[in-house]
Amino acid sequence: MHFSWYCVLNKPNPFEHIRVVLSHTTHPGNIGAAARAMKTMGLRHLYLINPRYFPDAQATAMAAGADDVLSNAVVCSSIDEALRDVVFTVAMTARLRDISIAVKTPREAMPEVLQQAATQPVALLFGTEMSGLTNEEMGKAQLGVNIPSHPDFSSLNIAASVQVIAYELSVAAASFTRVAAETQPASHERLEGLYAHLEKTLFEIGFFNTQNPARLMQRLRRLYSRTRLEDEEVNILRGILTVTTGYNARLKKRYLEEHPDVQQH
Amino acid sequence: MHFSWYCVLNKPNPFEHIRVVLSHTTHPGNIGAAARAMKTMGLRHLYLINPRYFPDAQATAMAAGADDVLSNAVVCSSIDEALRDVVFTVAMTARLRDISIAVKTPREAMPEVLQQAATQPVALLFGTEMSGLTNEEMGKAQLGVNIPSHPDFSSLNIAASVQVIAYELSVAAASFTRVAAETQPASHERLEGLYAHLEKTLFEIGFFNTQNPARLMQRLRRLYSRTRLEDEEVNILRGILTVTTGYNARLKKRYLEEHPDVQQH
Repeated sequence: MHFSWYCVLNKPNPFEHIRVVLSHTTHPGNIGAAARAMKTMGLRHLYLINPRYFPDAQATAMAAGADDVLSNAVVCSSIDEALRDVVFTVAMTARLRDISIAVKTPREAMPEVLQQAATQPVALLFGTEMSGLTNEEMGKAQLGVNIPSHPDFSSLNIAASVQVIAYELSVAAASFTRVAAETQPASHERLEGLYAHLEKTLFEIGFFNTQNPARLMQRLRRLYSRTRLEDEEVNILRGILTVTTGYNARLKKRYLEEHPDVQQH
Repeated sequence: MHFSWYCVLNKPNPFEHIRVVLSHTTHPGNIGAAARAMKTMGLRHLYLINPRYFPDAQATAMAAGADDVLSNAVVCSSIDEALRDVVFTVAMTARLRDISIAVKTPREAMPEVLQQAATQPVALLFGTEMSGLTNEEMGKAQLGVNIPSHPDFSSLNIAASVQVIAYELSVAAASFTRVAAETQPASHERLEGLYAHLEKTLFEIGFFNTQNPARLMQRLRRLYSRTRLEDEEVNILRGILTVTTGYNARLKKRYLEEHPDVQQH
């Protein structure tokens, strides 16, 4: 068993770095059932973004002994709060492909989750019962995961999804060997800072005049999420953005000086 | 996806031969959630042995669209009724080892389930919420399956277990190639007939005088379940049993004839 293995070798247990994030869960029973599913596989850290009812007797009943997971659950008012300090976010999706993110199967993805979680916080992000994650939420993730299901009836219960993912994590952990990482991945806040800077810059340089801003930002997020940006790379990119607006401002100023007859608008 | 694959090649879909059998389920919500879990992975045949409440509004609510699985569910009054015509029964167990049966992980076991289900009925047997399967129920199976879980909290919800098993089946089916079977495995009824014959014979020949009958029968079931008896082999074994009692009866008769002074008891 991987659990004892980590204890014996005094290795950090990657499961301690993994948080399950449930966004806008409607039924409290699902929160409890998800907590139970987590605990059966050794996951303990539950984050809840604006749950409709929590705490709730139904949640406790369905937890069936995983009360500690519920009582330690962190209730957040935004996804950015739930992803604080996270360096790798995996978003569950009903789609096999997605415009804003690469999508893998649980079996493909979980070794990567363990690798990232060996040293730093990782989030597994589950959407609301009826409609899953919003595009905005998907855009915060570095990887999408789709549980293969029957095309005629693909709607897994959210706690059932948590169970499958936690189970795959547990099986993957039993044969997991960490590959030493040479680089420091950028945190969620750093990535969001970059995207905000990028969007502002593209607006300032007038790039959005001919493009759909939301769709373009989605594609840029996809591009950068694929690369798994390092902290130092975020510095470099933001440096480029700063220079870009600076250059643009100087250019505009000089143009206006040389062409005093041109109307500003 | 394996579903379209079976359609395209006009192969028999092994999922049509797989029945999920829930024994003495206490909470109707779990029956509904299990039906939903089955349907998401393409399983349709649900058998219920003496459910406490069924049909029930809670089952329907938790099925969340898998109503057809519920309405086609077969309610049985005994395990033998639920296993009628089945040639291969897999029993879920919380134990990693078991005296009466070989135990594998879902990942190891599901390819074998598909292989058997390619041509004939197979059962996946789940016990009651509180205590799982009885020893008698375990004895009806040819293989045990244990979902690896955390040693401190290993109690998966029954619908969550169905989801994990159905998911593993679905993933295994995506890469499944049937190996042509040369033999005809014995059905559940034929095996039970053999065990009853064997027990009666061992009693008649006086073997149970020095042994615990229940425990011995458990060990014999384990032995034969491992071999996956063929139909023809059951004929051979029962033939031996018939001859054994016949021989024993003749021997006893002759002994009594030759020793008229010996008291019968």
